Amino acid sequence: MPDILHRVGIKSSANEVYKALSTRDGLAAWWTDTTKGESKVGGVIQFTFHSDGSELGGFDMKVLELAPGKRVLWQVMAGPEEWIGTRVSFDLKQGEGLTELLFKHEGWKEPVEFMHHCSTKWATYLVSLKELVETGKGRPNPRDLRIHIRD
Amino acid sequence: MPDILHRVGIKSSANEVYKALSTRDGLAAWWTDTTKGESKVGGVIQFTFHSDGSELGGFDMKVLELAPGKRVLWQVMAGPEEWIGTRVSFDLKQGEGLTELLFKHEGWKEPVEFMHHCSTKWATYLVSLKELVETGKGRPNPRDLRIHIRD
Repeated sequence: MPDILHRVGIKSSANEVYKALSTRDGLAAWWTDTTKGESKVGGVIQFTFHSDGSELGGFDMKVLELAPGKRVLWQVMAGPEEWIGTRVSFDLKQGEGLTELLFKHEGWKEPVEFMHHCSTKWATYLVSLKELVETGKGRPNPRDLRIHIRD
Repeated sequence: MPDILHRVGIKSSANEVYKALSTRDGLAAWWTDTTKGESKVGGVIQFTFHSDGSELGGFDMKVLELAPGKRVLWQVMAGPEEWIGTRVSFDLKQGEGLTELLFKHEGWKEPVEFMHHCSTKWATYLVSLKELVETGKGRPNPRDLRIHIRD
């Protein structure tokens, strides 16, 4: 099965990156402003997306793993059909002055065009996460970088 | 085998996007400033990358297909070991006021960490291509967005 894979280096500690991945306020500051729910193992986080005032849909993620400074794993419970049951993981490795983030969105049944789109969008949001942790300011939806198809 | 997949929508005609993918000047304006060689079927294009004045390496691409307004296909002849023999394709579909670009970098043997990196970097360069075609100004290497691991 095809996966979406990404990697970014973030000039900060793994604990700081983990905070942005494991708290509602952190997630809202790089992925989408309208993040609701509870980031705790077994909890569900609701991410919804907007463009020009209208709702575009979103994803409900069940939190499967929270390993401080190391790993966050979610499973998609609701959202676009192609996403249901897929898993999203963030793995952190701290180096000297830099934390390496390995991202994987796995479990796609087919490499549909929407998957191509999501791959590009994930990259832009991971750059937003990097900017948030390094500068204090991310670019979450609805201020995200538009790539102009289905967003 | 795992593939890198992306999609962007570009507010322009497929012919304009094709120009940026099929000419040396076009390629140099969104991927890397130091693009050499000939973009013709059977020709080889040399892309090299720099950071802070030192060369990071690069890729030699053999042009396999040039279908005006539709498709560009390259095969990697030289570069990092993981890239040799892989293929990079750009497929264009013109819609109303928007051209859809589907990108694929296929033939990776393993989903190594470097592949994660290249996936994220390709996304940033495709955004650079989009900006070039829409605004006249891209962000090719060495003015590209740094993601701070192996770049």
